[in-house]
Amino acid sequence: MALPQALENYRKQYRKIKLFQDVASVLHWDSEVMMPEEGREYRSSQIAAVAELTHEWMTDISFLNQIEAAKKSIGELPEWEQSVWKRELEVLMEEKEKADKLPSEFVSEFARVTNLAHAEWATAKKEKNFHSFANRLEELVQLSKKQADYFGYTTEPYDALLDSYEKGAKAAQIQILFSDLKKSLVPIVATAPKFKNPFPGVVSIDKQKKFCNRLPSLLGLTTKESRLDTSNHPFSTSLGKGDKRITTRYSETDPLSSIFGVLHETGHSLYESGLSSMPDWPTPITEFLSLGIHESQSRLWENQVGRSLPFWEFVYPILISDFGLTDKELPFKELYQYINSTEKTKIRVEADQVTYNLHIILRFEIERDLINGNIQVKDLPEIWNAKMKESFGLSIENDAEGVLQDIHWSMGAFGYFPTYTLGNLFSSQFFKKFTEEYPDSHNKFSAKGDFSDLLNWLRKNIHSKGKIYDVDTLMRDVTGESANSKYLISYLNGKIEEVTK
Amino acid sequence: MALPQALENYRKQYRKIKLFQDVASVLHWDSEVMMPEEGREYRSSQIAAVAELTHEWMTDISFLNQIEAAKKSIGELPEWEQSVWKRELEVLMEEKEKADKLPSEFVSEFARVTNLAHAEWATAKKEKNFHSFANRLEELVQLSKKQADYFGYTTEPYDALLDSYEKGAKAAQIQILFSDLKKSLVPIVATAPKFKNPFPGVVSIDKQKKFCNRLPSLLGLTTKESRLDTSNHPFSTSLGKGDKRITTRYSETDPLSSIFGVLHETGHSLYESGLSSMPDWPTPITEFLSLGIHESQSRLWENQVGRSLPFWEFVYPILISDFGLTDKELPFKELYQYINSTEKTKIRVEADQVTYNLHIILRFEIERDLINGNIQVKDLPEIWNAKMKESFGLSIENDAEGVLQDIHWSMGAFGYFPTYTLGNLFSSQFFKKFTEEYPDSHNKFSAKGDFSDLLNWLRKNIHSKGKIYDVDTLMRDVTGESANSKYLISYLNGKIEEVTK
Repeated sequence: MALPQALENYRKQYRKIKLFQDVASVLHWDSEVMMPEEGREYRSSQIAAVAELTHEWMTDISFLNQIEAAKKSIGELPEWEQSVWKRELEVLMEEKEKADKLPSEFVSEFARVTNLAHAEWATAKKEKNFHSFANRLEELVQLSKKQADYFGYTTEPYDALLDSYEKGAKAAQIQILFSDLKKSLVPIVATAPKFKNPFPGVVSIDKQKKFCNRLPSLLGLTTKESRLDTSNHPFSTSLGKGDKRITTRYSETDPLSSIFGVLHETGHSLYESGLSSMPDWPTPITEFLSLGIHESQSRLWENQVGRSLPFWEFVYPILISDFGLTDKELPFKELYQYINSTEKTKIRVEADQVTYNLHIILRFEIERDLINGNIQVKDLPEIWNAKMKESFGLSIENDAEGVLQDIHWSMGAFGYFPTYTLGNLFSSQFFKKFTEEYPDSHNKFSAKGDFSDLLNWLRKNIHSKGKIYDVDTLMRDVTGESANSKYLISYLNGKIEEVTK
Repeated sequence: MALPQALENYRKQYRKIKLFQDVASVLHWDSEVMMPEEGREYRSSQIAAVAELTHEWMTDISFLNQIEAAKKSIGELPEWEQSVWKRELEVLMEEKEKADKLPSEFVSEFARVTNLAHAEWATAKKEKNFHSFANRLEELVQLSKKQADYFGYTTEPYDALLDSYEKGAKAAQIQILFSDLKKSLVPIVATAPKFKNPFPGVVSIDKQKKFCNRLPSLLGLTTKESRLDTSNHPFSTSLGKGDKRITTRYSETDPLSSIFGVLHETGHSLYESGLSSMPDWPTPITEFLSLGIHESQSRLWENQVGRSLPFWEFVYPILISDFGLTDKELPFKELYQYINSTEKTKIRVEADQVTYNLHIILRFEIERDLINGNIQVKDLPEIWNAKMKESFGLSIENDAEGVLQDIHWSMGAFGYFPTYTLGNLFSSQFFKKFTEEYPDSHNKFSAKGDFSDLLNWLRKNIHSKGKIYDVDTLMRDVTGESANSKYLISYLNGKIEEVTK
């Protein structure tokens, strides 16, 4: 049966907006991976112009009228079809209302300041000097507070920002979850062993590339629908149906860095690939559910799979062959232990799977206080360094290895950090459920490198659900309970036990 | 002094259109060079949507009003500034009037049919079967005739199409120029020697890449503003200021193919780079003057420089080192002769610099007859093969090596071919003038690989002129006479003499 015209009309406009949002993703991917340096200025203005255009279309009254007409025409559909259409328009209106709440002058101003801040942050980090960046950061905090006011909130301003990354999440709940987690992590960190790098020397980037290029297909992401490249910071992006891009970076002295970059980003892209395979793609429903859920997909392949014994039993012979090493030069046990080594270090992006969450909790606490007005920008280095001393026992020598290390705040992205640890919690909870349902899957991993049970399970339970449900409903539907830290802790404890045997 | 507001306003809108046209170029470059195959369908719709948007803006009445207001406000400027502004708006209106003449349904229909035709042409070529493509080609011819009617013409429909690629050119004049050229080429082709491939074996693509990657910088196109990649067909494109992209293709058995691809495309990109350096870029004046002039820049670096003795005296030691060969294995004289070998072959894109023009003349004659209604699509293979027999003495075995070999007609691009040979004529005429003005330049080429005199001369005389003058005025200003075939013939005769010594 043909759709009512009003539904067709609204979807046509939605798809036009989505098409141009994906154009912006192409422009951005190219600028990070391919573009010669002198193209930067012009490219920035292209990205800004496309963003302005899609924001204009999204907030235009004619689009609202189309949505209203679409809503009214849902009644013409057979009853069993109505609820999914209602949800589709509801999800869209949530997104649209956020866009509508920001005056276009504010959007331009925010873009202008973050654009300046990005370069200034990079300079300050290079010069290890927080104070040359403090005024700009203060401006970003003020703008972010203003943004929170525009969005509105019930309890605290930070919630309004958090909601942009993790729909419906509240800082107070996350605080409880994270406190619980922190309490359990402390004794784990205290006992978890550090292992030394077992590689007998440097590994050329060509050899690493040979191995890394196998990984996406091994996990289920084919070269027909994806490509792997190199960039300064690993990332993944969906450029549309049948076109997922992942990147990694290579270090001759630390070959695991590129491998885990690929596993992580492949996890993100497998999720996007699943979303693009949903019927009627693209609709507001076929988008990723939240950043926490997105991160759960990357962490699951990176940690639960990528640091597991069955995975390494399968890939180890391939790795030593690609790297031109023997099993004497790189013994399996030493490699596997190193992959699961734990060590308190200063830099988040280099942290292991145990201490990583402590880095996130520290950032969450600081940014929450900052946005809620409990601490001042000028005091940030002192606060940061004190917390590092307290949680990690480490003394920060300079701001580059301290408060200036991450890009997020310079982008005005307050409320983003917690989604990383939410992803870790979700991934452990999902993976536990999967192994209960497919107890034999580990054998297929190790014997045949066959990960299809897991991918199919994720497709069925998470990817194909898009935004049909909210995060809590999805967690309960799939795992039988709301998100909690139990499974991550149990996973980490098991891991420590395994590698210290 | 500040510009009158009306001039600012019109330029702002012009630049927005240009910005999005360049977005389409990014999308297109990526699709040819990077994109995984399953991304094609979605990407096509993105490219079409951006094209539709810029066409909409270009033909919108509000833009016309801005241009009219801008025209009126020119009088407020100091007199010495007025003429360049008048020219700018005149050039824009020429472009705009062409866009305005096509109804938007026609533009969509043309895009739809060429999109289908492209795939069908590729299949027909693969299957060596013209007749499976004949109906679609007939449709394209009819659409192109309709397009010629929309544009309007004085003498013949073909002129209207030709004008889109070579502003102001007339088929009757080109016929005279080409007849003249053909008459002179026949004896040259008869005496020009064929030399055999001197490479002692295959050359790995990695070795070729090493050498090819040096060439753009050597000619003056730095990696800060450009990059070289691989694609099925070499091409170049400007993605904006500071961002020129060139591609080539590699054959292990024919290493000259990649090298001359790079030299050719670098020539195009040097022109675009010069245009982007014009003051006030981007304006309607800072665009390339015509396809013939564009081609003159690629041919000049590919042939006049790239097949010259001084060029090879400089790069030969680098080439044999990069290729891991000795001067005994690849003797200089044999290599240089092979670079300037002449042979009648069936495929245009593989043709040498002498016979290439005969390929173009053949196509020009056929497409002119086709658009003017003097011949029928169904008779094309017979006509093509007869002409190949007459001009080349070669028997065409199948349509893939005959009438189906080129992509142009499947894109509805009738009137494009002559610009290749115009480029050859222009380039010889320009280069002759340059060597008269810089008689020592050859020494700088051979001794130091210093091509800056030539690049500066091209920048000053051609690149920095953009669209200020029409083609004939530019040719007369720079070389003292209108375009003619004398210099190409003299260049080719000199070359034959040189290599047969």
